[in-house]
Amino acid sequence: MGSNSFGRQFKVTSFGESHGKGIGCVIDGCPAGVYLDEQMFASAMKRRRPGFSPFTSPRKEEDRVEILSGVFENTSTGAPITLWIENKDQKSTSYEEVKDVIRPGHANFSYLKKYGIFDYRGGGRASARETATRVAAGVVAKQLLGAIVIQAKVIQVGGYKENFKKVLEQVIEEGDSVGGIIECNIKNVPPGLGDPIYEKVEANLAKAMLSINACRGVEFGDGFDSAAMKGSLHNDQMENGKFLTNHHGGILAGITTGEEITFRAAFKPTSSIKKEMKTLLTCGANTTLAPKKNTRHDPCVALRAPAIVEAMAALVFADFILLSNCDKLEKTLT
Amino acid sequence: MGSNSFGRQFKVTSFGESHGKGIGCVIDGCPAGVYLDEQMFASAMKRRRPGFSPFTSPRKEEDRVEILSGVFENTSTGAPITLWIENKDQKSTSYEEVKDVIRPGHANFSYLKKYGIFDYRGGGRASARETATRVAAGVVAKQLLGAIVIQAKVIQVGGYKENFKKVLEQVIEEGDSVGGIIECNIKNVPPGLGDPIYEKVEANLAKAMLSINACRGVEFGDGFDSAAMKGSLHNDQMENGKFLTNHHGGILAGITTGEEITFRAAFKPTSSIKKEMKTLLTCGANTTLAPKKNTRHDPCVALRAPAIVEAMAALVFADFILLSNCDKLEKTLT
Amino acid sequence: MGSNSFGRQFKVTSFGESHGKGIGCVIDGCPAGVYLDEQMFASAMKRRRPGFSPFTSPRKEEDRVEILSGVFENTSTGAPITLWIENKDQKSTSYEEVKDVIRPGHANFSYLKKYGIFDYRGGGRASARETATRVAAGVVAKQLLGAIVIQAKVIQVGGYKENFKKVLEQVIEEGDSVGGIIECNIKNVPPGLGDPIYEKVEANLAKAMLSINACRGVEFGDGFDSAAMKGSLHNDQMENGKFLTNHHGGILAGITTGEEITFRAAFKPTSSIKKEMKTLLTCGANTTLAPKKNTRHDPCVALRAPAIVEAMAALVFADFILLSNCDKLEKTLT
Amino acid sequence: MGSNSFGRQFKVTSFGESHGKGIGCVIDGCPAGVYLDEQMFASAMKRRRPGFSPFTSPRKEEDRVEILSGVFENTSTGAPITLWIENKDQKSTSYEEVKDVIRPGHANFSYLKKYGIFDYRGGGRASARETATRVAAGVVAKQLLGAIVIQAKVIQVGGYKENFKKVLEQVIEEGDSVGGIIECNIKNVPPGLGDPIYEKVEANLAKAMLSINACRGVEFGDGFDSAAMKGSLHNDQMENGKFLTNHHGGILAGITTGEEITFRAAFKPTSSIKKEMKTLLTCGANTTLAPKKNTRHDPCVALRAPAIVEAMAALVFADFILLSNCDKLEKTLT
Repeated sequence: MGSNSFGRQFKVTSFGESHGKGIGCVIDGCPAGVYLDEQMFASAMKRRRPGFSPFTSPRKEEDRVEILSGVFENTSTGAPITLWIENKDQKSTSYEEVKDVIRPGHANFSYLKKYGIFDYRGGGRASARETATRVAAGVVAKQLLGAIVIQAKVIQVGGYKENFKKVLEQVIEEGDSVGGIIECNIKNVPPGLGDPIYEKVEANLAKAMLSINACRGVEFGDGFDSAAMKGSLHNDQMENGKFLTNHHGGILAGITTGEEITFRAAFKPTSSIKKEMKTLLTCGANTTLAPKKNTRHDPCVALRAPAIVEAMAALVFADFILLSNCDKLEKTLT
Repeated sequence: MGSNSFGRQFKVTSFGESHGKGIGCVIDGCPAGVYLDEQMFASAMKRRRPGFSPFTSPRKEEDRVEILSGVFENTSTGAPITLWIENKDQKSTSYEEVKDVIRPGHANFSYLKKYGIFDYRGGGRASARETATRVAAGVVAKQLLGAIVIQAKVIQVGGYKENFKKVLEQVIEEGDSVGGIIECNIKNVPPGLGDPIYEKVEANLAKAMLSINACRGVEFGDGFDSAAMKGSLHNDQMENGKFLTNHHGGILAGITTGEEITFRAAFKPTSSIKKEMKTLLTCGANTTLAPKKNTRHDPCVALRAPAIVEAMAALVFADFILLSNCDKLEKTLT
Repeated sequence: MGSNSFGRQFKVTSFGESHGKGIGCVIDGCPAGVYLDEQMFASAMKRRRPGFSPFTSPRKEEDRVEILSGVFENTSTGAPITLWIENKDQKSTSYEEVKDVIRPGHANFSYLKKYGIFDYRGGGRASARETATRVAAGVVAKQLLGAIVIQAKVIQVGGYKENFKKVLEQVIEEGDSVGGIIECNIKNVPPGLGDPIYEKVEANLAKAMLSINACRGVEFGDGFDSAAMKGSLHNDQMENGKFLTNHHGGILAGITTGEEITFRAAFKPTSSIKKEMKTLLTCGANTTLAPKKNTRHDPCVALRAPAIVEAMAALVFADFILLSNCDKLEKTLT
Repeated sequence: MGSNSFGRQFKVTSFGESHGKGIGCVIDGCPAGVYLDEQMFASAMKRRRPGFSPFTSPRKEEDRVEILSGVFENTSTGAPITLWIENKDQKSTSYEEVKDVIRPGHANFSYLKKYGIFDYRGGGRASARETATRVAAGVVAKQLLGAIVIQAKVIQVGGYKENFKKVLEQVIEEGDSVGGIIECNIKNVPPGLGDPIYEKVEANLAKAMLSINACRGVEFGDGFDSAAMKGSLHNDQMENGKFLTNHHGGILAGITTGEEITFRAAFKPTSSIKKEMKTLLTCGANTTLAPKKNTRHDPCVALRAPAIVEAMAALVFADFILLSNCDKLEKTLT
């Protein structure tokens, strides 16, 4: 079954490979009447883009989003919206020499086990480049969010919660990489969004985050710390129509309460490093992956993740907002 | 849109309320030829059941699973399998007096905002009782897992990693509750299971876990700790056909590698406690929820979670195993 | 993949066998606030029920619909609504002797090829009894239709468009059966319902009709006759804000125009007859199916079809009405 | 909810407008290992293409299919396959003058009611041009069909079953159009394909056909004629391991029997004609649509339909073949 669609009502189907002709997505289920122009995507794409900071990979991609369908006179028509990002800086030749090497931490091994074939050029479909389409789709999703504000930021790089620059410079000098943690805050969320049981807000956000390359964990509100808390502390008491605290992180029983939503996502260190690693050839023979001075990589993938985290959260809430129109008979008949 | 179905190929649709006639689920997409009888469910149900240990709530439910459809002469026929658990110990009267009270940490508030109506009897659909149907469905799912072994256990209660008994006795004495952490290990997983991009193994397991009441976070492999690690340490090198370490936790690029899968899920403290809490009436007026000596509750919901965590993981893998039959043309044509 | 769910937003999952404990369905996605009580189902169920007219099979089933979940104080809560119909008149013994016979026109052959197992008791899951759950679900769906009126009637029995009684008496005397044609008219349909491309109104109604046992064809508006028409005649001209004709049958480009919708569905003759037929045993050996005087069967399945046709049409429109809330941004934000 | 996806396991999502940059589709769920090259599409596209016969519209589109993703070294990788057809002969200017006219038989009216906006350039998303993506997707689907052969042909044009040329020449001279009927035969279908209840083979083929522009009806096997038949004639008796007749048209209880499948689809006359028609302006005022000598149109849309009918049938069977791998436990575990 296809695994490249995200969302139920606001449905994004993405496609494309790192070193193919380009990448893109089709958004099916976006209401008619949404204002869209190609310039809207530039700033969001720039935040995610490699080569944006001294600490991210040097691949030079303009990442210009082209609208191929679904928009007429700058307005969505209800038809599927197709966003296309051409690949302009792929250098397939530079991957020829590693085509038979299983790259540690990468998709080669598991994809070959599953499909029996792997597009090794820059990781093909498994490349982090795929996340560019998520950011593009998120720009459209944000048009449906009304007053909701989603903000994600890096709160930890390696073991450190501050002075990231120093950590990163050292890691680059070592030819190594580090992980990081992103925190995301969502404000002005109306109460009553999300669905019970299997489609809880946390469940959907968790799937959204863990679907991002290199994400290894997610927690909501007090998260893992809540395990050590007592109910008398964790329960949010109410008075004069308001919650007195927000340990529940804006979600009760999987549905929003109107309080601020907070979650954190952990990202592992970049798999591509410049240190020699033992690995196998696809034929099974032992080998070592020699450091490649010119290989593209980020010292810390988390640096580019905030734009992706925000985009995925926007997709989740665009979906919940649309679906909420069917919650009550009184709504559906108006 | 319905939010009560889980799974793509092996699809479970659950239904029922805490104090209605009963709860159950329909499993659609189970292959024909699976052996099933009603006795198979007893031990799994017992692990999750309230009143099972001195530290869980006193509700006395036999939780006997009845097969209503889909099985002929103890064999699945390919027709939808319906599992039904009758409610036998519901005492609605005991909820009349709190019907207008918004119970802190519970679904009343958010459900009323969403639906404008709430079945307050024991939490109705939002009750943890719903998880009994997950455990029952998991018993069927496990029949599809072949050699895969899924084991979950409590590794932390409150702030403590050992001597849980002492912590729990103290909490009960205080009329309070604590959270906990569950670890789940999955062995003998064939490589190549799971799907790329939005349907990664972690993404599906994360959604499965965060869909469980009271779950506040999940992490895979080294999880949040991986954020502090360097790539040279986190990357799993290979030699002589084997991984030398398993920091990746059995999953690369969202697809299984054949190594053991490990994840942890955090659960918040039980919301129902015997301490007085400030809250509101549904009309908006201030009130306090007086401690109820006879109210059913667990001091630590995590104690009953292992059976649920295993069941949800089984649903995820039953799905992936069935879907894996469509990975390669050579498979689909045989 | 499961094949027992119908609908996208208003989703019905049915289950149960002809001679099992009963049959039922789960409706997931029904808005909260819909009035429901068990008495509402009686008249609709009666129309479909066997033994209702002298011309339908003698099986005596009360077909009482019990609500197992999703309704609190006669109002839907947004939780899945489960409808259950107990089997009370199953006589499995009467099927023992035909258990190894492939019944012409029935499911035995194809189900055995697909699943390798077949619940032969009254056709098991393939029995027309399954349609009772469609009628029950349709009763709930009709609560969402507002002013829309759906009416289906038999317009042809065998080759005859009138005096059905005479045709049926003759067929019964012969121990034979005949087919029939149902016409369905849908009035007061708001314009703008339905979706383009793959989810056109006709496409969904056609799937709904052809999913009913014994249905062999469906046509909309002028249907097959339109093939012989010229565009200048078939095109519906407009004047003074109105369509001057309705050859398009209330649907243009898959979306409703507000004009009356008309379609016809053809049903083959009942497969169960009292005449001797050549067939095979499941082992492959030749045999003949001897006429069984006491076997339950209808001389014309089409006679019971109107209630089913209306129910399926109601499911289709309940879905479209709910989904239409997401057509325009201006709607979704209110 | 999106309405531009077709299929469950082999899922096609199409996009694009008649006079936008182009049209295309994403195929998600195609197994890895399928041979594909861009030349494979040419002949199928040519059959559907306008301007192909003297009797079809003069729009000159090369309809060259470009593969944008999912294929590496001429082999599918399991990643989504994107097919793209650039629009090269769109002349938007020629539509400016009818932008405010509701074209009889076309989508303007119903789309405006639904979405409040309509891309009037050549019908935008509602154009028959969209069917080109179905034909392209069908070429990929056919790679999964093994020995199955799908053949559709025109069996009736207007009221005539032969000498179509004469009918068409006369209609063109009149500036009018006619409908037609397509018959499709599917050979070498393995028994056991398709699913029970709501996903019957007929149900899926019917939805597939009625989703094609201008299709007004579909019938299987003896179709509408079966309504006039008696069971003793319609039932297919068996002897020596074989069916003696094939009134059931290769499908029993929604599942294939291995016999040849036959169905017919009726298409209404082309809506675009050169005769004056009364209609409305979008503002509601009366107007007439003056004959346009240079407007593109086909005298009979059915002439181009066989390629589309075959493609949609191929999508249905590719899906059933993939899904059939999950029918039995013995299959899924191998």
